[in-house]
Amino acid sequence: MSTELPLKIALFGSGRIGQVHARNILANPDLELAVIADPFIEGAQALAAGTGARAVATVDEAFAIGDLDAIIIGSPTNTHVDLISRAAAHGVAALCEKPIDLDIERVRSCRDSIRDSKSPLMLGFNRRFDPNFASVQARVQAGEIGRLEQLTIISRDPVPAPASYIANSGGIFRDQSIHDLDMARFFVPEIIEVSATGSNLFCDYIEEAGDFDSVVINLRGARGEQITIINSRHSAFGHDQRLEAFGSDGMLSAGNLTPTSVRKYTAAGAEEADPYLHFFLERYAEAYRRELDSFVQSIRTGTSCSPGFEDGLQALVLANAAEESARSGRVVKVGQE
Amino acid sequence: MSTELPLKIALFGSGRIGQVHARNILANPDLELAVIADPFIEGAQALAAGTGARAVATVDEAFAIGDLDAIIIGSPTNTHVDLISRAAAHGVAALCEKPIDLDIERVRSCRDSIRDSKSPLMLGFNRRFDPNFASVQARVQAGEIGRLEQLTIISRDPVPAPASYIANSGGIFRDQSIHDLDMARFFVPEIIEVSATGSNLFCDYIEEAGDFDSVVINLRGARGEQITIINSRHSAFGHDQRLEAFGSDGMLSAGNLTPTSVRKYTAAGAEEADPYLHFFLERYAEAYRRELDSFVQSIRTGTSCSPGFEDGLQALVLANAAEESARSGRVVKVGQE
Amino acid sequence: MSTELPLKIALFGSGRIGQVHARNILANPDLELAVIADPFIEGAQALAAGTGARAVATVDEAFAIGDLDAIIIGSPTNTHVDLISRAAAHGVAALCEKPIDLDIERVRSCRDSIRDSKSPLMLGFNRRFDPNFASVQARVQAGEIGRLEQLTIISRDPVPAPASYIANSGGIFRDQSIHDLDMARFFVPEIIEVSATGSNLFCDYIEEAGDFDSVVINLRGARGEQITIINSRHSAFGHDQRLEAFGSDGMLSAGNLTPTSVRKYTAAGAEEADPYLHFFLERYAEAYRRELDSFVQSIRTGTSCSPGFEDGLQALVLANAAEESARSGRVVKVGQE
Amino acid sequence: MSTELPLKIALFGSGRIGQVHARNILANPDLELAVIADPFIEGAQALAAGTGARAVATVDEAFAIGDLDAIIIGSPTNTHVDLISRAAAHGVAALCEKPIDLDIERVRSCRDSIRDSKSPLMLGFNRRFDPNFASVQARVQAGEIGRLEQLTIISRDPVPAPASYIANSGGIFRDQSIHDLDMARFFVPEIIEVSATGSNLFCDYIEEAGDFDSVVINLRGARGEQITIINSRHSAFGHDQRLEAFGSDGMLSAGNLTPTSVRKYTAAGAEEADPYLHFFLERYAEAYRRELDSFVQSIRTGTSCSPGFEDGLQALVLANAAEESARSGRVVKVGQE
Repeated sequence: MSTELPLKIALFGSGRIGQVHARNILANPDLELAVIADPFIEGAQALAAGTGARAVATVDEAFAIGDLDAIIIGSPTNTHVDLISRAAAHGVAALCEKPIDLDIERVRSCRDSIRDSKSPLMLGFNRRFDPNFASVQARVQAGEIGRLEQLTIISRDPVPAPASYIANSGGIFRDQSIHDLDMARFFVPEIIEVSATGSNLFCDYIEEAGDFDSVVINLRGARGEQITIINSRHSAFGHDQRLEAFGSDGMLSAGNLTPTSVRKYTAAGAEEADPYLHFFLERYAEAYRRELDSFVQSIRTGTSCSPGFEDGLQALVLANAAEESARSGRVVKVGQE
Repeated sequence: MSTELPLKIALFGSGRIGQVHARNILANPDLELAVIADPFIEGAQALAAGTGARAVATVDEAFAIGDLDAIIIGSPTNTHVDLISRAAAHGVAALCEKPIDLDIERVRSCRDSIRDSKSPLMLGFNRRFDPNFASVQARVQAGEIGRLEQLTIISRDPVPAPASYIANSGGIFRDQSIHDLDMARFFVPEIIEVSATGSNLFCDYIEEAGDFDSVVINLRGARGEQITIINSRHSAFGHDQRLEAFGSDGMLSAGNLTPTSVRKYTAAGAEEADPYLHFFLERYAEAYRRELDSFVQSIRTGTSCSPGFEDGLQALVLANAAEESARSGRVVKVGQE
Repeated sequence: MSTELPLKIALFGSGRIGQVHARNILANPDLELAVIADPFIEGAQALAAGTGARAVATVDEAFAIGDLDAIIIGSPTNTHVDLISRAAAHGVAALCEKPIDLDIERVRSCRDSIRDSKSPLMLGFNRRFDPNFASVQARVQAGEIGRLEQLTIISRDPVPAPASYIANSGGIFRDQSIHDLDMARFFVPEIIEVSATGSNLFCDYIEEAGDFDSVVINLRGARGEQITIINSRHSAFGHDQRLEAFGSDGMLSAGNLTPTSVRKYTAAGAEEADPYLHFFLERYAEAYRRELDSFVQSIRTGTSCSPGFEDGLQALVLANAAEESARSGRVVKVGQE
Repeated sequence: MSTELPLKIALFGSGRIGQVHARNILANPDLELAVIADPFIEGAQALAAGTGARAVATVDEAFAIGDLDAIIIGSPTNTHVDLISRAAAHGVAALCEKPIDLDIERVRSCRDSIRDSKSPLMLGFNRRFDPNFASVQARVQAGEIGRLEQLTIISRDPVPAPASYIANSGGIFRDQSIHDLDMARFFVPEIIEVSATGSNLFCDYIEEAGDFDSVVINLRGARGEQITIINSRHSAFGHDQRLEAFGSDGMLSAGNLTPTSVRKYTAAGAEEADPYLHFFLERYAEAYRRELDSFVQSIRTGTSCSPGFEDGLQALVLANAAEESARSGRVVKVGQE
């Protein structure tokens, strides 16, 4: 085991995603969870109990701890830009949940403000670390199916987020599809065209919010690759998270996950698997651990993080283009900034 | 078995598809293959040998046989309209391979010309009779997955047709995608919007012909249903013919077919299935048989055929709209005519 | 197509299995169904209706037809030896359903009596012609998994045969397991040891008949191969017909068959396939066709049939040994006769 | 999280299995790894480094630590009886790897010696905690497939243990099959008959040691249940660990595990999964964690452990009976002691 001192971590946010990170930090002997910050101080306190971490209500208190090596940003979206900037100013590494911000101009100005920072900055597109998707991507990169021609990403949440969440989500493209748009860029970094359609099929309050509950996005890569993303805000059979990479020499797919390998055979049907893992906390548990490992590795070796800030920006550019296309009925061209 | 006289059939075309129909007619005790017509008389003669059918070179000779109950049209596309019209004029049933014609105006004028005909007319969208797709469609209709929301159709040919064929094919949308557009209408008869993108990824002579080798089509149904069709002119692993119907209560999928249920397990990998059935002759062998059975059933019972002329027309409308969308970068609205 | 005259066939038995053969003969242009013989003359007449075949009640009438090329024996077991002998005496090929007889001494004396016959004789172990099992066997023979070490055969009927059938069946080993014992010999022709156990788990009338409803058989091949056969007289999920060949370099398996490739995904479970094909008429439909093709091929080319008489005898030897082992609790050694 | 003090643990053995337990203890906040004992003191020291645990060479030193709550026995088999007795004498809980001992008389006398002990004692049949097998067992118990009739357990190691290990292993039945014999008892606790066969198919040094490399075992339960265990000392495609529970109303199976859900499709074959997890460290990683959790739970709640000492004894009785049957060619009857 490591002879170095553990990295000292400040965690921002004690909600669902903060709890995931807290558990993974605590289970990693190379990390010390020094402080948990949340204006909802009871949440921070509950999460910190028995861990040795200090619970604080403000960002200032968190940074006042001193000697921080990294922060992990799991607080609401509108706090991200500020925390990223502060991390850069303090020379502290940061792992920030997506999106950087819903307003692309704020993202761009944040980019400008941290341009000279040398601190590692990772964007929390955790699905890049899912062992299944990562394996497909690595094997495609290794040429196992020749040239990549068509990529199909199916991504459906089990149930719609509540109306209050939807209202501040930035819409399905910026909130849900953005993960899949980043996944598209994981395989095909340079996207040149976006088209999309949206429908309201099952959720009244999403429709009332002016948002879609079901969308399809088509992307074109710089070499003509065709990428299709199919999203829905619900799925009766659990978190539907699959992709297929089709190339000149074959195809690689990554399917959904079941809790066990058990199959059932009766007069009603054969080979019935367990219901799929319900949602991202179960489905991407391993991805969150590997993401954290990668972040630590970058800090320890002084290499840049991947995915990084630019990936966060580009995914937002694509989400905005998809929204524009779905509203206008036209293909939208995008370029690297 | 039937006590009625067998139906007397004239088959037009002795090529690949004509041979499929000839075999199925001969294996059906309720049918008599009376005549095979092909201007390439050697083809007709070879196919007729030993079957009791007469080989002729011209349409006139075929119809001169007398007492025909039905014709099956497997000759080149540019002969379809004439043969359909003649069948109607003779009061003879017709089963015509798709498409009716590449020129939608000719299709419309054909429709007008046969408006008063009572003769059964079936369009050869054989995939509707594939037991796998037909089962999914029937179960969706029966409400097994609630309301249909998203339909994904993946359809890839094993290898591109030769350049000579491509040149006269009418393009990938009218030649290949048209099957999938009809499949979309099998599930969602009323389509209101079409968007599409095309790429040239692997086949020079298709690009030189001004055609695409890979396309993605998105359709919107009248109730907002989202349909995605993904096509390629090649597939290293055989005929890739799948669909998934996603509804409010679950999903039904139909997968590719292997010649056997054999699986292989080695140090290199586990559960490896046989390569998929290579192309439509193998993949849709049963569909062609069931299509013929349905045609016979319609004739015997005097009911109208499904799919019929209108389905052929609507599929062509959608193919044309997809082409227009791929060229213009805009969603194209379509309506029932 | 063939320019030779069709082979003239007499079919004995108009029951379930006779009907399978009748359909396959009629669908084969190289065969002529000349006569159907059954003492239950109404059965023969019903099956012959509209086929051109003559229905007769006696064996003598059937052979009196003249010019027969082959007989197919689908009549009750106790008629098999006589019909085989008659076919040999007439110099006519025979395809005989298993078993040759339940009394091994009658089988041996039949063997002696036809020793000098040159007429092709095939035993109806149709499962050797199942495309799935045949593929595994051929690939094992080709060395694809190295040396064969363990073979597992699972074979369960959907529902027990009625009490009246059980009473005359010869018991589960000679009636049901015999197919699997032949399958074992298809992979490992020389068996040297047999052990078996039997249980009465669910069917009272089988127990009252002194028979088992569930058995497990272990065989040892001459090179030490271990073969396990698991049988049951019932299976809630349809005809359970699988095998796995495990070798030094890997494994090949053949699984159960579904009518379609459709899968269902709901909150209750994922990837649910259709119920398996119900029983042998569906499961082995293709095997019966290929068996008949092989029989015809042997006649046409003058080569010996496989499986032949000796295979029928050896399977019975193994069935008897299994019965003896299950009754005595001891391993029974067997040798080639 | 718990407000109780962590349980203080002594771990015996720093080899492969000791390392598994050490990692799981360290990851469990409810446990404190106080001491690691191994006469190979360098092993103990290496494993203890940086963990806070003390490394000792002798059993006496380990127990001298004081205030121990539990010991975990991962040392060689011939130390198990002594350590179990000492744990009982100290009133300390014990989790002991299988087998208790290779000599059944020593096991029986150990049982007598600890008869009055109230300390929890768990036998390390970790596969009962595998989520896949545990799920099947629980669903069978819940009646999901009606009455259990036939159970098939396939269990093959990836490669034979080295000759030195084989020599002291007690033979394949007591070393490898014993896990499967316990699995059989997990489903059917009362076994009344055992028969077995063994072969030497691929490993010379196993044959020279007078042991088998491949065995098949049949068990009969008190209600007639038929259980088949198929073992091999090698498997080209990884750790082959499967079972099928067949009942009056259906079947439940648990299959092998792959590291990802990725599938590959090429001209050579379709749906190829990753190679299976290689061996027990990967395959049963989760089972070891859940076993430890269950052990802790028993200690905390003062309930008896399952599986316990009696399960270790009964599995050995069955292994001995299997050996006797394989040598004698006779069914061996066994009874509860």
